Amino acid sequence: MNDNIKSEIRALRENSAIAYLASVNEEGYPQMKAMLVPEHASMKEQYFSTNTSSKRVDQFLKNPKASVYYSDNELGKGVLFTGTIEVCIDHDTKALLWDDNSWQYYPKGIDDEDYCVLRFTAETVNYYHDLKNTTLKINEVIDND
Amino acid sequence: MNDNIKSEIRALRENSAIAYLASVNEEGYPQMKAMLVPEHASMKEQYFSTNTSSKRVDQFLKNPKASVYYSDNELGKGVLFTGTIEVCIDHDTKALLWDDNSWQYYPKGIDDEDYCVLRFTAETVNYYHDLKNTTLKINEVIDND
Repeated sequence: MNDNIKSEIRALRENSAIAYLASVNEEGYPQMKAMLVPEHASMKEQYFSTNTSSKRVDQFLKNPKASVYYSDNELGKGVLFTGTIEVCIDHDTKALLWDDNSWQYYPKGIDDEDYCVLRFTAETVNYYHDLKNTTLKINEVIDND
Repeated sequence: MNDNIKSEIRALRENSAIAYLASVNEEGYPQMKAMLVPEHASMKEQYFSTNTSSKRVDQFLKNPKASVYYSDNELGKGVLFTGTIEVCIDHDTKALLWDDNSWQYYPKGIDDEDYCVLRFTAETVNYYHDLKNTTLKINEVIDND
C-alpha cells in the first residue's frame, strides 16, 4: 500500500511543471503563488528561483515555515509537502538552477543580486486521493531519492 | 488602469473551476488544497463545501486566517484573495451549495452532520501578471458585486 502511495507522490512531483508555494505573512495569513518547477531531483529538497526583492523572500526570511503543493485536478490527486524554506544567495546554489532563459530576468547573470534560490526542505508529506488522506514523514518516502 | 485590473481579477475568479484554499495549522505551517469552485457570485464572499470532520475545518475553527488563489498558469496570471473563513453548519447556508451531486458525498442530505460550508470573506486582493504585483483592498474591486 505504502509503495503505491510513494510512487504516486513521486509521479506528481516529477510530472508537474507548476507547484504552489505557500508562506505565512507578518500578520499570520497564509499566502501562496504558482511557481515554475525548475528541477525534479529529490522530494526532500526542492528548489525554486525568484527575485530577492520579492515579498515572498521577505516573508521567508522572517518566517521559514512553508508548504509546496502539486496537484492533478482532473484525477483529483494532490500532494502537500510541509517544511521550511532557506533563501540562498551563494553562487553555487544559484548556479544550480541557472540556464539560458535566466538571462532575460537577471541580466547581470548568476550573481545578479536580485536573483536568488529558495531551498525547500520537506518534513512531512500528505497525499490526497479519492477522498482519502495519508500523511507520512518525508523519510518514509525518500528511500529511492 | 485599475478598471483593467478589476476586470482581470473578476475574470480569473469567474472562469476558474478550481481554487487553492490555504490555512495555517496548529504548528504555524501554511497548508493548502485544491477545491472545486461551486459558485462565482461575489468576490468579497466566496463559498466552498467540505467535510465537517476534515483536518481543514479543524484548522479554520482554531485559526480563521485564510487565502484563496486562482491562477491561469499558461498566461502567467494569478489572483490571491486574503481574509478569513467561517465554518457554516446552519441549514440555510448549507442549502446554498447543495445540488444533485452532493448526495453521493453526503447521503443524509443537506443536514448531514459531515457536510459543511466554508464562507471566505476577503479583505485584500493581490493580482500578479507580467512580473508585476498590485495589492488592493477588497472594497476597491467590488463596486459591481
